[in-house]
Amino acid sequence: MIKLSEISTIPPEGLKKDDVKKEFEDLRERIADLQTVMAAEGKYSLLVVFQGMDSSGKDGVSRKVFKECSPVTLSVRAFKKPSDEEFAHDFLWRVHKYVPQKGHIQLFNRSHYEDILIQRVHNWIDEDLVDARIKAINAFEDLLWKDNKTVILKFFLYLSKDEQERELKQRISEPEKNYKHRDGDWEERRHWDRYMFCYEEAINRCNVHPWTIVPADDEWYRNYVVAKKIVETLEALDMKMPLLDKSKIDIGIPIDDL
Amino acid sequence: MIKLSEISTIPPEGLKKDDVKKEFEDLRERIADLQTVMAAEGKYSLLVVFQGMDSSGKDGVSRKVFKECSPVTLSVRAFKKPSDEEFAHDFLWRVHKYVPQKGHIQLFNRSHYEDILIQRVHNWIDEDLVDARIKAINAFEDLLWKDNKTVILKFFLYLSKDEQERELKQRISEPEKNYKHRDGDWEERRHWDRYMFCYEEAINRCNVHPWTIVPADDEWYRNYVVAKKIVETLEALDMKMPLLDKSKIDIGIPIDDL
Repeated sequence: MIKLSEISTIPPEGLKKDDVKKEFEDLRERIADLQTVMAAEGKYSLLVVFQGMDSSGKDGVSRKVFKECSPVTLSVRAFKKPSDEEFAHDFLWRVHKYVPQKGHIQLFNRSHYEDILIQRVHNWIDEDLVDARIKAINAFEDLLWKDNKTVILKFFLYLSKDEQERELKQRISEPEKNYKHRDGDWEERRHWDRYMFCYEEAINRCNVHPWTIVPADDEWYRNYVVAKKIVETLEALDMKMPLLDKSKIDIGIPIDDL
Repeated sequence: MIKLSEISTIPPEGLKKDDVKKEFEDLRERIADLQTVMAAEGKYSLLVVFQGMDSSGKDGVSRKVFKECSPVTLSVRAFKKPSDEEFAHDFLWRVHKYVPQKGHIQLFNRSHYEDILIQRVHNWIDEDLVDARIKAINAFEDLLWKDNKTVILKFFLYLSKDEQERELKQRISEPEKNYKHRDGDWEERRHWDRYMFCYEEAINRCNVHPWTIVPADDEWYRNYVVAKKIVETLEALDMKMPLLDKSKIDIGIPIDDL
């Protein structure tokens, strides 16, 4: 059982920032190499879910960790307030459309987890529906792996309440961050403890695929933790570049001396 | 009237490759900055269409030119052989779904132009339908700009027939490129002259938004030409970072001393 109150939002003591940043550069090059093999082999896909409070860095981590990747087989989907049509469907309907095809990497900025987070925090749904949704999430994530070899990595970007306050204030005080300000972020902040409870529940009860709790107060460490987990996970798949069977090539000319 | 036979597939003489590569680095940083403003302002969107013969570098240019961009508001859609469902609709149906929303950049790797290229080359459609499709394309692209401020840039990656042969052979001879080989690419190559005629028609008759003919035999020059056109086009929009009207902020606490 994970207790968020026992987990730090800052990097472990003694880590050298410069060393970590250097290793991070290598890790993200490696992610791009692994992306190339994944796309060429077309056997697996990767779904990366980023969850976290406002300003925890969901956009930033997407940009930094996947910097060396090709956009050709990498997509990001941000799940914002559902449209009327989305609300008129089950909660997985809008999410299912965006799961990655074989060979592709898909990032979710927020996800189906919002439906047991913001909705539960505000009691817009009752606990019976929470239970049903948790079951549905587990079945859904299990299906993606078993039926289509989609690897799922879920990251909770764990920010402290104080750090969030600094970040949200900067959005008001620094003109180049003004566009990120939303009054509503300050309202959600008032429900901090309830959010942490609901996150803990989501993390502990939806564990068919692993969550990684990412200390998110410092951007450099946050990015590193995410990149490292992705590299370790993709390397364990033992993917291989497919080779041509030359006896099967049929291009109308001899290929002997290519 | 553009005549492809009068246009070179290689860089102009006298250009210094190192200088061009250096300017290219600056240009792609600039594209990322412009992407940030576009996303923040949410007024315009950008649709970039890449067309070209097999191995002309449609994937490569997407990866290199947009290297500094965030994947959060950048997407790539590759239009391959239509599915049965897509074939059972008009040719714009599958394309329309992927046009960018305000603030986003969308790349098309192939596009609605295939429907007046491969289909016309092989005479799968008659000339009346070609005329109708050209009219439809012009109306469609006009609509995207006028109705939703979508800037459209279309790039024909103009490769020589000899350079294509070298590239296609490498896909067979070099193991790490094996996964790119398709027998069918050699078949399409036999229709080269007919393709050039159909491209010329597409370029000359679908000019509501401009085409850029990109000499594509050399990767470094190809990338530079594309990046330069994108920067010039986006800079001309005169986009601005939106600033907060502080009198309208309502976050439940005074903001005077943020």
